[in-house]
Amino acid sequence: MPPRDRPISHSTISRRRFLQTASAVVACAGAGRATFGAAPAAAAETPGAADEPLAARLGIASYTFRLFNLDATLAMTKRLGVKYLCLKSSHLPLNAKPEAIRAAVEKIKKQGLVFYGAGAIAMQNQAQIDEAFEYARQAGLKIMVIAPTAKTLPEIERKVKQYDVRVAIHNHGPGDRHFPTPESVYEKIKNMDPRMGLCVDVGHTVRQGDDVYAALEACRDRIYDVHMKDVTAANVQGQTTVLGRGVMDMPRLFRTIQKIRYSGVLAFEYESEGRDPLPSVAQSVGYARGMLAALNA
Amino acid sequence: MPPRDRPISHSTISRRRFLQTASAVVACAGAGRATFGAAPAAAAETPGAADEPLAARLGIASYTFRLFNLDATLAMTKRLGVKYLCLKSSHLPLNAKPEAIRAAVEKIKKQGLVFYGAGAIAMQNQAQIDEAFEYARQAGLKIMVIAPTAKTLPEIERKVKQYDVRVAIHNHGPGDRHFPTPESVYEKIKNMDPRMGLCVDVGHTVRQGDDVYAALEACRDRIYDVHMKDVTAANVQGQTTVLGRGVMDMPRLFRTIQKIRYSGVLAFEYESEGRDPLPSVAQSVGYARGMLAALNA
Repeated sequence: MPPRDRPISHSTISRRRFLQTASAVVACAGAGRATFGAAPAAAAETPGAADEPLAARLGIASYTFRLFNLDATLAMTKRLGVKYLCLKSSHLPLNAKPEAIRAAVEKIKKQGLVFYGAGAIAMQNQAQIDEAFEYARQAGLKIMVIAPTAKTLPEIERKVKQYDVRVAIHNHGPGDRHFPTPESVYEKIKNMDPRMGLCVDVGHTVRQGDDVYAALEACRDRIYDVHMKDVTAANVQGQTTVLGRGVMDMPRLFRTIQKIRYSGVLAFEYESEGRDPLPSVAQSVGYARGMLAALNA
Repeated sequence: MPPRDRPISHSTISRRRFLQTASAVVACAGAGRATFGAAPAAAAETPGAADEPLAARLGIASYTFRLFNLDATLAMTKRLGVKYLCLKSSHLPLNAKPEAIRAAVEKIKKQGLVFYGAGAIAMQNQAQIDEAFEYARQAGLKIMVIAPTAKTLPEIERKVKQYDVRVAIHNHGPGDRHFPTPESVYEKIKNMDPRMGLCVDVGHTVRQGDDVYAALEACRDRIYDVHMKDVTAANVQGQTTVLGRGVMDMPRLFRTIQKIRYSGVLAFEYESEGRDPLPSVAQSVGYARGMLAALNA
């Protein structure tokens, strides 16, 4: 079985709800952020959140290394000194046999890495949904980064309750007719099970012309994963680039992530230079570390 | 001829002297830091200093790429997005023919990079001194990072005056019986020509057990180059590592560099992983950029 620091509870409540409730219950003023009576706050349960500073919660979205096999992907992730791995299906097919999944899980664990999530996974029909939740169960995942449609959300919510796995709906910017922005996701899931959340792709958000800083604040209680990148332009022509070389206000982005007390993983995704992405994603990881050190985060 | 933004003047005065003088001359209170009457301050003449923020003054000490040829070194430097190059002799021998030097200078310029310096160059006898200053003249260098002895300093000073090229004496930590620390350099050159200065290797300074932050402040008016790195231990066993992964207090280091208004290049030198240093030095460059962005430097 893969590492699983603490099971995700059915009694999970969102951080916003927790804060709203907490502020109304003066007697509980001394309770920590992480627990509230018997109902732990969602924030404390996000993968990697367990008392780790943000700088320790860096990860790789393995789409970055899609042209490499799993072994090479793990070796490069280790060179980056990051711990968390969100696997793309190219590194472990969604229809992999249980033995193959177990072997991958063991291999990742042996390298000292945490296979916390998978994605992005299309969930646009029942077969895709069924397959993905079984995969998540067998791999012991805490989270799936997904690409659903508005229509499949109710079935996904049913599965989320059944399997007790979080989903983080990924916004894909211009060209994504389902979920271009974080707000378009939030609007649809805000009243659903609290395990229905967002993976904010900050790059695609900016490419859509959306205010990514406001979006992070607006959706803060449901952000369970973040795809980190910079982009060369705030429009459909924008391409992934190294953090600090694009149009995004990186100090503001990191301060916003601090401000909303984001408790998940910052997963670096670098779509460019597919045959040799390591030197560039390495600069991005370094950039984040330097900034977080300066911000003491 | 290589780019040379402004010639180094014989009337150069150090920044500390400039400030001392300026404070005594009330009538000149409106004069900028960069000029003082006919005598430009040393700070304004440091390579790369021309109104560029620190984040634009990142460079590579090409010793990092010593196992690669010049073409590969330039390609990797460009991928790092840094502009300044301090060449090790492995990339252009000190006894290279004038045509070979000219060709290298042109090649570097064509790549949009600035061949601002060379080193570290041993200057422990007359032949080495003669050869290096000729090389510097032919390459149009602004600075040489050097490894002299106390005994050769007077001859080096004579050549500095003759050739009007700055030298930056490199401290090499434990095992360097001549100049282990910045202070050991400063003590010897503080009363010599102001073009006699330091390349502070922050890693070797820490390996020596020296207080690198205090050293930077103490030697501030003569620091003309900096070798950036982190180290795994504050003793002779310390090895180069990626910025932020070692024992150095990086936010304090960068704040000190800001505080002393260092106006030269921050040259990354990474001695480890000689056969594949790029992913690691890329993290260091990224780290510096992220930190400088947070510090608005």
